[in-house]
Amino acid sequence: MVASKTIYLKINNLTFMISIKNKSLISKTIQSKCKKIKLILSDVDGVLTDGGMYYSDQGEIMKKFNTRDGMAILLLEKNIPTILISGENSKIVIARAKKIHAAEALIGIKNKEILLPKLCKKYNVKNSEIAYIGDDLNDFKIMEKVGFSVTPNDGIEKIKKIADYICKKNGGEGAFREMADLILQYKM
Amino acid sequence: MVASKTIYLKINNLTFMISIKNKSLISKTIQSKCKKIKLILSDVDGVLTDGGMYYSDQGEIMKKFNTRDGMAILLLEKNIPTILISGENSKIVIARAKKIHAAEALIGIKNKEILLPKLCKKYNVKNSEIAYIGDDLNDFKIMEKVGFSVTPNDGIEKIKKIADYICKKNGGEGAFREMADLILQYKM
Amino acid sequence: MVASKTIYLKINNLTFMISIKNKSLISKTIQSKCKKIKLILSDVDGVLTDGGMYYSDQGEIMKKFNTRDGMAILLLEKNIPTILISGENSKIVIARAKKIHAAEALIGIKNKEILLPKLCKKYNVKNSEIAYIGDDLNDFKIMEKVGFSVTPNDGIEKIKKIADYICKKNGGEGAFREMADLILQYKM
Amino acid sequence: MVASKTIYLKINNLTFMISIKNKSLISKTIQSKCKKIKLILSDVDGVLTDGGMYYSDQGEIMKKFNTRDGMAILLLEKNIPTILISGENSKIVIARAKKIHAAEALIGIKNKEILLPKLCKKYNVKNSEIAYIGDDLNDFKIMEKVGFSVTPNDGIEKIKKIADYICKKNGGEGAFREMADLILQYKM
Repeated sequence: MVASKTIYLKINNLTFMISIKNKSLISKTIQSKCKKIKLILSDVDGVLTDGGMYYSDQGEIMKKFNTRDGMAILLLEKNIPTILISGENSKIVIARAKKIHAAEALIGIKNKEILLPKLCKKYNVKNSEIAYIGDDLNDFKIMEKVGFSVTPNDGIEKIKKIADYICKKNGGEGAFREMADLILQYKM
Repeated sequence: MVASKTIYLKINNLTFMISIKNKSLISKTIQSKCKKIKLILSDVDGVLTDGGMYYSDQGEIMKKFNTRDGMAILLLEKNIPTILISGENSKIVIARAKKIHAAEALIGIKNKEILLPKLCKKYNVKNSEIAYIGDDLNDFKIMEKVGFSVTPNDGIEKIKKIADYICKKNGGEGAFREMADLILQYKM
Repeated sequence: MVASKTIYLKINNLTFMISIKNKSLISKTIQSKCKKIKLILSDVDGVLTDGGMYYSDQGEIMKKFNTRDGMAILLLEKNIPTILISGENSKIVIARAKKIHAAEALIGIKNKEILLPKLCKKYNVKNSEIAYIGDDLNDFKIMEKVGFSVTPNDGIEKIKKIADYICKKNGGEGAFREMADLILQYKM
Repeated sequence: MVASKTIYLKINNLTFMISIKNKSLISKTIQSKCKKIKLILSDVDGVLTDGGMYYSDQGEIMKKFNTRDGMAILLLEKNIPTILISGENSKIVIARAKKIHAAEALIGIKNKEILLPKLCKKYNVKNSEIAYIGDDLNDFKIMEKVGFSVTPNDGIEKIKKIADYICKKNGGEGAFREMADLILQYKM
């Protein structure tokens, strides 16, 4: 677990960089979990976004994704497919999945954990070979079942308690990329 | 389990006070206020949003809500209804309220405190059983009357002075969720 | 001048609040400048917004304002008119000015300082009775001439050097409100 | 005028390293690199934006640029042309380039480094007279070749390792402006 913050303080014409760190190395357990991963599942709101729901008077019209997460999925594509799984029934997710070459986008999924057997069969993997990144209560059950469970730094407390790895980045700020880089690092 | 430390640091002619505190203990007063809550009222701009008003040349076209606040209202729904009350006359609020199953959305309300007797009657509650979360001057009077008054971390100073509880989160970043989790924790 | 930062650090289940402050009282000079103000002029991009220009393939389509700044202009309205002055030629500014009851919105103004004599005449004020808040080079000349010059915390260095008051808040996060509260405090 | 201090702080079993540094001195190497610059190339997503991709169900509809970066390109225009180079095939980039008077906008460029010989010829400059600012893997190769390579503070680690200068600002928050100010400062 890594806790780290850097702040800049400006006083008169001087800039002070104040960094506060509690660094521990990525544990052997995490490394061995990463090595096994063959499929990545990702929640959408709060993970690929900062949780922001942009509403007009017609309801939700927009989500803000991050280009660095998109790059991660492209990097993974060759070896490890990524599937987006959202509780929301939003076509915006479909549009984003298509652009970044996600293997699939599953929307309107109330009980995500129920999908696991079907996905294991389709992609010929075991639960222990799946990574899942989520941030809220409806991600709890599936996170208990997969091999490597990850949450953005601003995931809710109950999710952070059970996650194998808590990202340094928040949702929408590259948390998915951080997980992908970690997996790619230890797969190589 | 309270950890606390204060250091004074001199750099050039400036003195910095660095204080590090564990703020996770919630006072008995707050706990007892939470236990009583049967109805939640929430301001919109600056609480469910970061105060952002997205304008085109046609006026306001968008607000950015947070999926984690939406999840909170769904969690509360079974036991504690939530009402959105906005000084603004925006139909965007209606669209959001519908999506997250808020009990009501009251818009264009200039003097929010005047609504209390009517709401108490309709929902069969007392002022002491109502929680209100707001961030600005037009929330002042109603916050003085309800049982549990809450403000996001970036509420204005005058509101922070009278609030029973100041969230760690800012408006739009999950302040409502933080309040909801607190209430749910002590209601159980 | 006030430099202050608060960060939250989460380690295991404990939340640490780390606050670093260098507090000095608002100087007598600032107080006396505030007392004289009868007219407020405000730059738009980078002051009432965080500098964000939301572009589609058709060019700029949106700006994000802050409800708390809007409240400030409503609070000032009774006694001190506010005029928005933008170098950009954007109708979005007109829409926002109308909503928050700004006295005027002047757009496409390349040399803002040239407006001063005309505005002084129209509003029957002297330069020393005008406050101006701006953040970038094209605000430099007018800021040297008015009675009270203010910049958001993220204004550029050259502007911060000449500003009478540097806000704790950034542009779009309530910097205008902070200036308005300061003026209102010492006018009373 | 360099102030620097490091403290070690023990709370429970954790050790925090708190370091406070004045980073305002720019090395001689950076100064000499800046002096040579005659052409600036800039990545778009993650540099001129915070990496945010605003999606509707029709795909990307919006990018958020920063007015202060726009001002920088206008300031540079007289002496140093700026070219936007994006891996994405987005017409939004064209709209922004036009507004801020960029010399060119090159979109859908997969291997940016291949462009260098052609650009050197067209603008009559050497690689050592080109500055490039980028944030992600597809910027790696071109950054190794140009005279002055820069990355926003939130560029990915691999890019930060090879960059000549790491901005204090993040992408979309004025990183480009920070680089431009640096170059202009030492060109004068």
